[in-house]
Amino acid sequence: MNGACAHIIAVGSELLTASRIDTNSLHITERLNAIGVAVSAKMIVGDDRSQIAAAMRDALARADVVIVTGGLGPTDDDLTRDAAAEVFGLSLEEDAAIVEAIRERFAARGLQMPEINRRQALVPRGAEVLPNARGTAPGLWIEDGLRRVLLLPGPPPELQPMLESWCERHGVPLGGGMHLVRRVLKVANVSESHVEEMAQPAYARWRDAGLPLSATILAQPGQIELHLTATAPSREEADAVLEPAVADLVDALHGHVFTTRGESLEEVVGRLLRESGSTIAAAESCTGGLLMSRLTDVPGSSEYVMGGVVAYSNALKTDWLGVSPALLEEHGAVSEPVAVAMADGIRARHETTLGVGITGIAGPTGGSSAKPVGTVAIAVSTPEGARVRTHLFRGDRQQIKFWATQAALEQIRRLFTPAP
Amino acid sequence: MNGACAHIIAVGSELLTASRIDTNSLHITERLNAIGVAVSAKMIVGDDRSQIAAAMRDALARADVVIVTGGLGPTDDDLTRDAAAEVFGLSLEEDAAIVEAIRERFAARGLQMPEINRRQALVPRGAEVLPNARGTAPGLWIEDGLRRVLLLPGPPPELQPMLESWCERHGVPLGGGMHLVRRVLKVANVSESHVEEMAQPAYARWRDAGLPLSATILAQPGQIELHLTATAPSREEADAVLEPAVADLVDALHGHVFTTRGESLEEVVGRLLRESGSTIAAAESCTGGLLMSRLTDVPGSSEYVMGGVVAYSNALKTDWLGVSPALLEEHGAVSEPVAVAMADGIRARHETTLGVGITGIAGPTGGSSAKPVGTVAIAVSTPEGARVRTHLFRGDRQQIKFWATQAALEQIRRLFTPAP
Repeated sequence: MNGACAHIIAVGSELLTASRIDTNSLHITERLNAIGVAVSAKMIVGDDRSQIAAAMRDALARADVVIVTGGLGPTDDDLTRDAAAEVFGLSLEEDAAIVEAIRERFAARGLQMPEINRRQALVPRGAEVLPNARGTAPGLWIEDGLRRVLLLPGPPPELQPMLESWCERHGVPLGGGMHLVRRVLKVANVSESHVEEMAQPAYARWRDAGLPLSATILAQPGQIELHLTATAPSREEADAVLEPAVADLVDALHGHVFTTRGESLEEVVGRLLRESGSTIAAAESCTGGLLMSRLTDVPGSSEYVMGGVVAYSNALKTDWLGVSPALLEEHGAVSEPVAVAMADGIRARHETTLGVGITGIAGPTGGSSAKPVGTVAIAVSTPEGARVRTHLFRGDRQQIKFWATQAALEQIRRLFTPAP
Repeated sequence: MNGACAHIIAVGSELLTASRIDTNSLHITERLNAIGVAVSAKMIVGDDRSQIAAAMRDALARADVVIVTGGLGPTDDDLTRDAAAEVFGLSLEEDAAIVEAIRERFAARGLQMPEINRRQALVPRGAEVLPNARGTAPGLWIEDGLRRVLLLPGPPPELQPMLESWCERHGVPLGGGMHLVRRVLKVANVSESHVEEMAQPAYARWRDAGLPLSATILAQPGQIELHLTATAPSREEADAVLEPAVADLVDALHGHVFTTRGESLEEVVGRLLRESGSTIAAAESCTGGLLMSRLTDVPGSSEYVMGGVVAYSNALKTDWLGVSPALLEEHGAVSEPVAVAMADGIRARHETTLGVGITGIAGPTGGSSAKPVGTVAIAVSTPEGARVRTHLFRGDRQQIKFWATQAALEQIRRLFTPAP
């Protein structure tokens, strides 16, 4: 790292309990690294003004820039503003424009602004105010010679866009103009070691060619991410190194890569459905609606998601989906023929291009030696017939639900981009 | 806090990347809290001797005891021992007994001890050695007047038993024999500032009465958590302070508290449904299956969740749920009468005790000035009739979906524990 170094301070007594952890710093680290700023220490302190101030002083003495998250709320516990004003020797003054913005935010929901929210409009004199599009607490940027501190609210949806605009305005110059460009490739339903094995030859080629590339493999629940980064004096130069390397990896991973742009699997599937003019409906048992919920997380999904059912009981499977009682009797509810009948049934019922049927045992009870907890049959019905697969997933109830939806989405994606 | 306070320092450059996080501190915090030692700050530094030493000096100045994890390995990167010796002004001396123990460990696996492992036998003069039953790096306990530091290896299987034996020998006396007990109260669908306003009088009473209580308020997506902790010479005494305070807060918050034991809202609703022998089905539009997915995240939910539908199109609302086309025409799909008809329809169709109907606009498109993005009508149908409410939520598509399911669950809970 050639550029500046940062310390991150997370403020919040809850982050000092046994059940909570600071995860904002991961996002901040990624963004800072991308503009050539290294993170050299992180600190977590409680809602205590003198401790926040002490942490800021220590950090300012050792880092080029200090990023503080949390403690910008409206209550007596929210002391980050006060601590920063103390450390920089600035007075706190109420900013009328911020009061007005907060008042309007409440008014839009038909509410009156509680008086305590006025605290969020206090600004250390001379600080730059970063507007908050998603909450009441604005961010603050204080620069005094070589001492620089950025105060951000704790909730990630509020923090992240604010950090983005700060990076553009103040972060990039601090990073010394180096650009780190990252591409995220994702693979579902393949183990980390298999991905690693397939990727190794490409890594070796890049090393031999002396390319300024680094690759990290990251196992996420239900998917593997490959983070590929290139560092260069300009974004264009970094891209020029990165593009052929991405193509190299996609090739090495034999069609398993579902995105090279960091998209989620439901976004990729949604794009494929929309582009092909297909529609979809799902009949879910053990996943309890999670597949439909993930499909409908994507903006514009109402174009291609026609809906579906959560059929927990056998009665629903027969009455609603037309799965025959004889089939249920013969194979059991958790079986490939039943998954296929559910997929065919929901497709016929909704008159969609595709139908999905999922039946399985999410646990913790209900398993047997023949069909242990984690057994899930997934069928996708198409105008050309149905395909079905049985999986055995490991983990707790929520993990099994997620893995099953991940496998279903991958099965749909493969209809459009078959394995070689 | 009457007992001692600790700072935790995690050492390791990998903990400063975007993909790794220090989780040892959660376990340490839990163990320390249980013996009345509070954690008042955490710090993460890279494998840099001067930074480790600086972090130790800062921490020793502010805490009664400092726990350092990591950096005790055999390589040049492992600098925690060196930094501690520097900070306490002690010389590092090789401990023959440790060399022997490491040598035996390797010998047991038929291996010769690599020379670099001798580094792990270096002990700051006068430090107490904590044997490592599961690895080569011993722990070290250095006490010099009021400056106390415990050095533990990073791998959890090595760290945890060592921490246990330190707690018994040195930790309990440091905690002054104090015990800290925590209770987590949660509230849905009320803003942080309103919760704070309602809770203030209780806080003031406790302060005036000089109770050894501390309260933290925590805004989570869709809910507010109140963490209440009491410190006392015994767990029983802490409980005796805590119980009336919890009751006090529940009272002050007018029935808004849905748990005093840290449960999720879907767990609470699930318990109420099970205990009352009720069953439920849901007809979801804008939430796309998320309500059913959350309900079915709870183990044992198949007892009371009968299933439901995701009705994205009007055709489904009419064909499946019996919502009349005239009603849709007159009021629009997003309206209270339609939400009620969906709730009644799904309840009749599934023959359940309760039926839920949710219709709204999750965005980002589809809003109008009369019904902006975030408008959601939620109805719950019961044997005594239906109740319906219209909300206006803010945020992106996924946030609006979550808020809507949170409001629906709270509406169900209120059937069992009505507002006063």
